[in-house]
Amino acid sequence: MLIPAICSLIYRENDLWVFLVSASFTSISGFILERLTKTPEKLEEIERKDGFFIASLSWFAASIFGAIPFMLYGVFENPIDAIFESVSGFTTTGASVMKDIEIFPHGILFWRNFTQWLGGMGIILLAIAILPRLAVGGMQLMALEVPGPATEKLTPKIAETAKKLWAIYLILSALQVVLLFIAGMSLYDSIVHTFTTMSTGGYSTKNISIGAYGNPLIEVIILVFMFIAGANFVLHYWLFKGDFKKLSGDPEFRFYLFLNMGAILFITLDLWMRTYPSLPQALRFASFQVVSIGTTTGYATDNFDLWPSFSKWLLLILMFVGGCAGSTSGAIKNIRIMILFKKGYREIYKLIYPKAVLPIRIGKKVASEDAISSITTFFLLYFFIFLVGTLLVMAEGVPIITAISACAATIGNVGPGLEQVGPALNYADLPGFTKIVLSLLMLLGRLELFTILVLFVPAFWKQ
Amino acid sequence: MLIPAICSLIYRENDLWVFLVSASFTSISGFILERLTKTPEKLEEIERKDGFFIASLSWFAASIFGAIPFMLYGVFENPIDAIFESVSGFTTTGASVMKDIEIFPHGILFWRNFTQWLGGMGIILLAIAILPRLAVGGMQLMALEVPGPATEKLTPKIAETAKKLWAIYLILSALQVVLLFIAGMSLYDSIVHTFTTMSTGGYSTKNISIGAYGNPLIEVIILVFMFIAGANFVLHYWLFKGDFKKLSGDPEFRFYLFLNMGAILFITLDLWMRTYPSLPQALRFASFQVVSIGTTTGYATDNFDLWPSFSKWLLLILMFVGGCAGSTSGAIKNIRIMILFKKGYREIYKLIYPKAVLPIRIGKKVASEDAISSITTFFLLYFFIFLVGTLLVMAEGVPIITAISACAATIGNVGPGLEQVGPALNYADLPGFTKIVLSLLMLLGRLELFTILVLFVPAFWKQ
Repeated sequence: MLIPAICSLIYRENDLWVFLVSASFTSISGFILERLTKTPEKLEEIERKDGFFIASLSWFAASIFGAIPFMLYGVFENPIDAIFESVSGFTTTGASVMKDIEIFPHGILFWRNFTQWLGGMGIILLAIAILPRLAVGGMQLMALEVPGPATEKLTPKIAETAKKLWAIYLILSALQVVLLFIAGMSLYDSIVHTFTTMSTGGYSTKNISIGAYGNPLIEVIILVFMFIAGANFVLHYWLFKGDFKKLSGDPEFRFYLFLNMGAILFITLDLWMRTYPSLPQALRFASFQVVSIGTTTGYATDNFDLWPSFSKWLLLILMFVGGCAGSTSGAIKNIRIMILFKKGYREIYKLIYPKAVLPIRIGKKVASEDAISSITTFFLLYFFIFLVGTLLVMAEGVPIITAISACAATIGNVGPGLEQVGPALNYADLPGFTKIVLSLLMLLGRLELFTILVLFVPAFWKQ
Repeated sequence: MLIPAICSLIYRENDLWVFLVSASFTSISGFILERLTKTPEKLEEIERKDGFFIASLSWFAASIFGAIPFMLYGVFENPIDAIFESVSGFTTTGASVMKDIEIFPHGILFWRNFTQWLGGMGIILLAIAILPRLAVGGMQLMALEVPGPATEKLTPKIAETAKKLWAIYLILSALQVVLLFIAGMSLYDSIVHTFTTMSTGGYSTKNISIGAYGNPLIEVIILVFMFIAGANFVLHYWLFKGDFKKLSGDPEFRFYLFLNMGAILFITLDLWMRTYPSLPQALRFASFQVVSIGTTTGYATDNFDLWPSFSKWLLLILMFVGGCAGSTSGAIKNIRIMILFKKGYREIYKLIYPKAVLPIRIGKKVASEDAISSITTFFLLYFFIFLVGTLLVMAEGVPIITAISACAATIGNVGPGLEQVGPALNYADLPGFTKIVLSLLMLLGRLELFTILVLFVPAFWKQ
């Protein structure tokens, strides 16, 4: 919170006190909480169960404290909106309830985008170092070849892995800032948009998002960095070490590339036939939007809510897929979708050879049946929670397409949806209970469902 | 085809020749096919693979030949429509491309509804006697307590099981005809509506379906028989034998009852709040529509496309659930949904006790891990095929809600959907390719997906 305060100082705007008060309050709260609770002597004492609890609680806490600057400055009329915006930040969703973004001072908007960059850091740690060890939703498949020691307990050695990955995150962020600046963005805009690209968050300081720049070079740079941010950061680590084969040979990365290119092709054709007479124009908007939605970033260069039904629906399906495991993107993730496809084919094959033993392979590795079962259950729960969300939201009177796309875009940590939550509008006018439901969906999606759901099983609380 | 001919004779209408020609052509085709092919000496020689092939081919063949009377009479302008109507009949879907139903003679409409009743007979045989033995989509779970000998091979003893179940189907049908007649329907209307109730088909001879009668007693009778037709016919068999405990103790039946009552409660409240001022009126329309959609019948007493979003969306979700296994209803079926819920809870529980062995029980029986795996894959494939269907249909320009509901209503063998395929309209105005896609979805859904999908695996065709 002291970093946006620097921004307020530079621009000499009236939001400086907001960050100083927020920072003080947050520090004091943290100090009191530390005093009131017992810290284990050694980090090795942190157990499996604690892992779920810590992961869930840290996102809740960050979101609550992160809302304080919005509340103090009076950005929103009520705390539900402030918390929604903050949850949407730390979960790198990008769904906004700010009606007019451009009227707010640089510090406030810096903080808004900075929450996504911080959230992105958290997700990398969570997805690569913690969840695989907790065997959440088949993430144990991810445990392969993580740069750093792979141990069973949640030891401080995780910090080593985290540092390496965060270094990559920082280097890539710095690179993007420089490139955007060269392409013609102001330094401020370059920084705050890098925050929300690398984290696949999607907050912008412009009301009509990246479309406001109307600059194809900026669009290409952002497209490339969204795609990078949606790929596994472990692969980036190996790439930095000069091992290009790890990237090109990774089955999930190839699937991710293939899926994005396929979607771009189909949406380009649909737009060319029905919306834009020029093929390059159709390709330009289609490719940006597919990568933006497919990586769960949520930037827009065009009002895709006006696109034909096929394109809109395919984008909605991509909201469920997301990027790669170990990236900052949300939703189900490519590796799980791959496993589900392979499982489907195996089951049909088994009808012909009922006694055949058919292991499912990802590259050269065999996926354990436990991991496969966990992945299918992840999909089922994801879909079930999505449906419950849609019903709750519609019970408050929200129309079908708005409700479906809002729930898909929040549980998938994407951001904009269709109709009333489309790229030209935002979540501001939705009713209050709906905003609470959507905030919970963002947290559930971000923490890979199980991490939160496990807290609701009575057995979790037994000693 | 000679049965509707009797109807033409009685009413002295101009469609008699249609049925005589159709019947002759069908008989001759059958005779030639039998001559050209080799029949195995003993039925025991029919193997596993043949089972899939015979099941798929019989529905294809029935649908093609069943379309002949529609084509000869000139009901439709093109064969795609005639085949669509016939597929929709034999698969007991009830999606119609007839713009004005009431202008056609009694014989033609009798045939249209009769195809559903025949289809219903076929499904009972398929679901209870054949698919469990082929282990399709976890149907082996169904193999419990079938009245008749349970053997591994497709032996003629299946015929014994079939006869018993068809007797139940006939008795229940006769009972419904009598009750509808007493309630004030004409004998003809009673018979043809019984055809489409017992088969959960949903074709009506009225343009606005059961709503045309405006008779609450008729609605109650049809509601009860739809509910019966959506329950497992094996349970009905035991009930006829006087064993009431089998019904009341059946976990799937209780889930089915609970689900329908829950949906009625919520939709009644939604309608009472937003559409109808009177609670009895809201309850009347809600209960009929929930059971009609929940059993995949598809009758309507109100234009539910005008209902609020929550009610419409819940009906759409029910289209995916369907009735019980071993009934004439379509879609995923309650027992699979139950297993999926239990699997979800087990996976969360496993995160707390990673080494616990937790069998999934249905009543007192333990479901095999193979069956559970097959059921999850069934769900995945069902959903995947639904999505592919929606994309194909939207590629032809069909709007989102129309496309989603049309695909859900055809793969689930329900009938009407929302918007352009809502209860006040029908499938007639959809473009041609879309009608072909929807016809395939009806067949895929009806044959529990795997039965058709297995034909596309190259290994199937190897000796």
